[in-house]
Amino acid sequence: MRKLFGVCGLGLIVAMAIVVNSSGNVSAQEFTYTPQFNSKNELMLPRNHIWREWVYSGAIVTPNSLKDGAAPFPEFHSVWGEPGAYAYYKKTGKFPEGTGIAKELGLVGSTEAVSGNGFFMGKLQGFEITIKSKKLYPNEPGNWAYYTFGHHAEPYNKSAKKMPAEACNACHESTAADDFVFTQYYPFLAAAKPK
Amino acid sequence: MRKLFGVCGLGLIVAMAIVVNSSGNVSAQEFTYTPQFNSKNELMLPRNHIWREWVYSGAIVTPNSLKDGAAPFPEFHSVWGEPGAYAYYKKTGKFPEGTGIAKELGLVGSTEAVSGNGFFMGKLQGFEITIKSKKLYPNEPGNWAYYTFGHHAEPYNKSAKKMPAEACNACHESTAADDFVFTQYYPFLAAAKPK
Repeated sequence: MRKLFGVCGLGLIVAMAIVVNSSGNVSAQEFTYTPQFNSKNELMLPRNHIWREWVYSGAIVTPNSLKDGAAPFPEFHSVWGEPGAYAYYKKTGKFPEGTGIAKELGLVGSTEAVSGNGFFMGKLQGFEITIKSKKLYPNEPGNWAYYTFGHHAEPYNKSAKKMPAEACNACHESTAADDFVFTQYYPFLAAAKPK
Repeated sequence: MRKLFGVCGLGLIVAMAIVVNSSGNVSAQEFTYTPQFNSKNELMLPRNHIWREWVYSGAIVTPNSLKDGAAPFPEFHSVWGEPGAYAYYKKTGKFPEGTGIAKELGLVGSTEAVSGNGFFMGKLQGFEITIKSKKLYPNEPGNWAYYTFGHHAEPYNKSAKKMPAEACNACHESTAADDFVFTQYYPFLAAAKPK
């Protein structure tokens, strides 16, 4: 067994204690993100937009022009999984303890471009994250907790209280395809699941 | 100086020769992708969907329902930059020799969900890549070449001929905001550029 400092392909230097056996196989899956809380038990905004270098799951758009008044999010939603949790999901089909899934919101910019009529991303407009942890959230359905750092342009809120289960978790529990995650709308995450 | 095998945070083991100086600083930026060509000089489809673990740049949707007949791509476009090239861009604001930028296409699935009316990703529907290389493409405008592996469900084509400059490069040259790349529609890539 040997411990190395891994150098991530994203240009980040991540101090990871990786256990490598004599055949060179990596036997532990480390995470690149650990939730940090302030003294009020509010989740701190992840630093340096780290989620933007996580693994993309998919994107959807709910344009203002099509809103029925009930759509709770600004228009474009981009979703990423934390790389360690993604790797675990890819191997096992399960979201492990400590999984982080991030969503950044954005307004529609153009609706016409050389590639056709449609919806093109404009200004970024908010950040949210969900974390699965039996240890941190023993009483949340599925052990998933949801946080929003504001539906507005940057700077995003520096910290966020856990949302009440009825605000986020309830819809995820009743409608999401795979363990509270809307994999039915995120084909790249769905494709990663082992058959 | 010391050479390590880096372990990428995406769960991939990438044999990277990383030069680390005595202060522990990484002084070389390695890429995780090298274009492979067959005997007919066609680009080979990157293996194992490796681009899906690159760094997400943004997504757009040009729905069939809004097409004016001229839209050349199936509906959702998701775009990623190769992590080494992305890291270089983040440091310098330039796309380096060897940059790979991938685009995977997808159909609209649902147009209504608990989060509102809009466009939700459905089935994946094609793969394309552009590569910047003065060495490989000395005569292409900007040294960018474009390849499509089909606008259809998987399996994607195993290899692709370089597209004529007038098919792809011309629009990129005239309309894209930053060195033939449509950063105006990809806010996560635009945000990575140093100020």
